[in-house]
Amino acid sequence: MASDEFDIIQRYFNASALAFACPELALGIGDDCALLDLAPQHRLAMSMDLLQEGVHFLADADPYSLGKRSLLVNLSDLAAMGARPVCFTLGLSLPTSDEQWLQAFSEGLAEVAQAHQCTLAGGDLTASNPRLASKTICIQVHGDLPANEALRRSGAKVGDHIYVTGTLGDAAAGLAVLQGEAPADLSTPSKTALVQAFYEPESRIVAGQILRPLASSCIDLSDGLASDLLHILDASEVGASIELSALPMSPAFCEAIANARRQEVAISGGDDYELCFTIAPRQVATMQQQFAQHNIPVQRIGIIEPGNTIQWRKEGQKTVLNVRGYNHFKQQQVQGVL
Amino acid sequence: MASDEFDIIQRYFNASALAFACPELALGIGDDCALLDLAPQHRLAMSMDLLQEGVHFLADADPYSLGKRSLLVNLSDLAAMGARPVCFTLGLSLPTSDEQWLQAFSEGLAEVAQAHQCTLAGGDLTASNPRLASKTICIQVHGDLPANEALRRSGAKVGDHIYVTGTLGDAAAGLAVLQGEAPADLSTPSKTALVQAFYEPESRIVAGQILRPLASSCIDLSDGLASDLLHILDASEVGASIELSALPMSPAFCEAIANARRQEVAISGGDDYELCFTIAPRQVATMQQQFAQHNIPVQRIGIIEPGNTIQWRKEGQKTVLNVRGYNHFKQQQVQGVL
Repeated sequence: MASDEFDIIQRYFNASALAFACPELALGIGDDCALLDLAPQHRLAMSMDLLQEGVHFLADADPYSLGKRSLLVNLSDLAAMGARPVCFTLGLSLPTSDEQWLQAFSEGLAEVAQAHQCTLAGGDLTASNPRLASKTICIQVHGDLPANEALRRSGAKVGDHIYVTGTLGDAAAGLAVLQGEAPADLSTPSKTALVQAFYEPESRIVAGQILRPLASSCIDLSDGLASDLLHILDASEVGASIELSALPMSPAFCEAIANARRQEVAISGGDDYELCFTIAPRQVATMQQQFAQHNIPVQRIGIIEPGNTIQWRKEGQKTVLNVRGYNHFKQQQVQGVL
Repeated sequence: MASDEFDIIQRYFNASALAFACPELALGIGDDCALLDLAPQHRLAMSMDLLQEGVHFLADADPYSLGKRSLLVNLSDLAAMGARPVCFTLGLSLPTSDEQWLQAFSEGLAEVAQAHQCTLAGGDLTASNPRLASKTICIQVHGDLPANEALRRSGAKVGDHIYVTGTLGDAAAGLAVLQGEAPADLSTPSKTALVQAFYEPESRIVAGQILRPLASSCIDLSDGLASDLLHILDASEVGASIELSALPMSPAFCEAIANARRQEVAISGGDDYELCFTIAPRQVATMQQQFAQHNIPVQRIGIIEPGNTIQWRKEGQKTVLNVRGYNHFKQQQVQGVL
C-alpha cells in the first residue's frame, strides 16, 4: 500500500509519462502554485483545493463561513507565491438544491471574492450521488505575476532567517472549541477569536506581494509548521533550526491551551494559513518596514542551516520532538473539520 | 426549491456580487470555457469538470478507461472553443490508497495527456470520508488561443448551416450495453464499438482548431443535441430547424437501437462529446475540405432560423418531440454511469 499523500503524488502523478515538460509550464507539481508562461510579459499562478464534507468540513457547517473559508484557503496559495488574485473556478457537487445553503454559501464566496477582486470565472455544478448525500467543493484560483517572478519553496539559503506571519495554533484551538474540547472556563472573547481564526484565516495576499522581491522562499501553513517547513527544506536542500520559545502565540491561544502543550500545538496544528518564509539578513529591515506599514505581524522563529531536517531548540538547547503535521492517507482520520 | 442546474448557476453564482467584471476576464460563466486575457498576444481557455462515483461513473469502473475518459471529456470543452491543450490540474479524493487503481488510472490519464500534449501541472490529493468510501475526480484543462479569438456559443446567425461531427447516440447505446440493456442478439463488434464510444469519446481538438476561423458558433455535446443546441440558440438569440432524417448514426448504433427509437436516442443521449457548430454557407466548402484532409466525419443536420427554439422536422415536415438532454437537479437519477 502506498501510504503517504506525497508518496502517491510522486509515484503515480509526478511521473514523466503524465507530468512531462511543456514549453509554457514554468513550474509544475510540487509548490504552492503551478506557473504558466503563455506570453513574454505575464505569468499565471494556479492552485486547486478539493474540500469534502466529513473530511474538511462537517455537513452542518455554516454555509456562509464555509463559502468564505473555501476561497480564503485557496487564496493562501496565491499569497505564498506572491501572486495577485485574478479569478477562480468552482466545482460544486450537492445532494439537493437547498436554496438557503446555496444563498449563504454564495454570499460567503462573494464577500471574499470582492475583498480580493477575484471574480468567479466558471466551473461545474453537479448533483451528487443521492445515496451518499455528501457535498464536495473544488476551487481553483488564478493569480497574476510579473514575467519570471514567483516566491518559490526552493530558494532558502544557509544563513537565511526564518519568519512566520501572525500567530500559530489558533485555528487548531478554534477547531477544539468547535468540537467541544476547549477548557470549560475559556472566556467568550477567546472562544470567538479562535473560532474566527479557524473559519476565516487572515488573508496574507499583501504580505506575499511584499515578500516576492525580498524573501528567498515561502510556503503557506496548511498542515502545520512541522510538516510545511519540511517542504521548504526538501525543495531548497537545506536544514533549519527553530527556536520553540520564539513561536508567536495569541493571548486567546494561551488561554485555551495549557502551557505544557502550547509549543506542540503551535507547530503541529493545521489550518492557520499564515506564511512561513526565509529571507537573507540584508533584506530583513526592508521587509519589517513594509510589514509595519501594512500592520502585518511577523516573527523570526529560526535560521536556515546545512542539513535536511528541522533542529528544534528550547532557549537555544537542542531538543527532540516527535510531531508532524497532517498527512492524508497516513492518518485515516477526519481532518480540519469545520 | 431551485430545481434546475442552469437556474441555480444563474441565481446563485452568475450574480454580480460573485461573478463581477474583471479586466483580464474576457469571458466568464456560460460557455464551454472561460477566457482569460493576461497579455496582449495570448488568451487562456479554462474549463472544469467534476466527476463523482455513482453519478458519472460506477465504483467498479475500469480505472484505466476512467482515467482516459476523465481527461477526454474535459478536452472536449477546449475543442469546442478551438483552443490548443496546454496543461491540466487534477483534484482527486480517494477512500483508500489502492495502488492498482492509482496505477491504472494514472496510465489512462497519461495516454490521453501525451496524445494531446496536455501535461499535468498540479492539483490536490485528499483522503475522502472513509464512511462514504467514494471517489471524486475534478479536472481543469487549460488551452491556448490567439489574441481575441475563440469559438463561442453566441455567434450563430439566421441562415447559418448546422453541423455535427461524428455520429450521435453511440455513447448512450454503449451505456445501455454496459448496463445489460442491449438487445440479446447484438453482435460483439457492435457491442465493442458502442462501449468504446462511451469509454473513449473521439477527441475533436483538431476539428475545433479548423473551425475557429470558420464557424459562427460551437458547443460540445455532453448532455445531448436536444439540450446542448439550446445553449447555442439562447446565447445567439436565434432558433433552429433540425432534419431528423439527417442525424448521423453509426451501423453499430442502428443495430443496437430499434428504428422507431433511433432519432429520439440520437438527440437525447448524452456523452457523445461530438461538436455541434453553425457556419455561414460561404465557409462550408473550406470546412469540408479541411475536415476531409483530417478524416473528420461531419454532417449537416439543419439551419439557423429566426425564433428561440428547435423546430424538429421529419423529411421536411414539422413534428413535435418532447425530449430534452440531461439536466442535473431536474432529474435526480444516475447520469452517464461508466
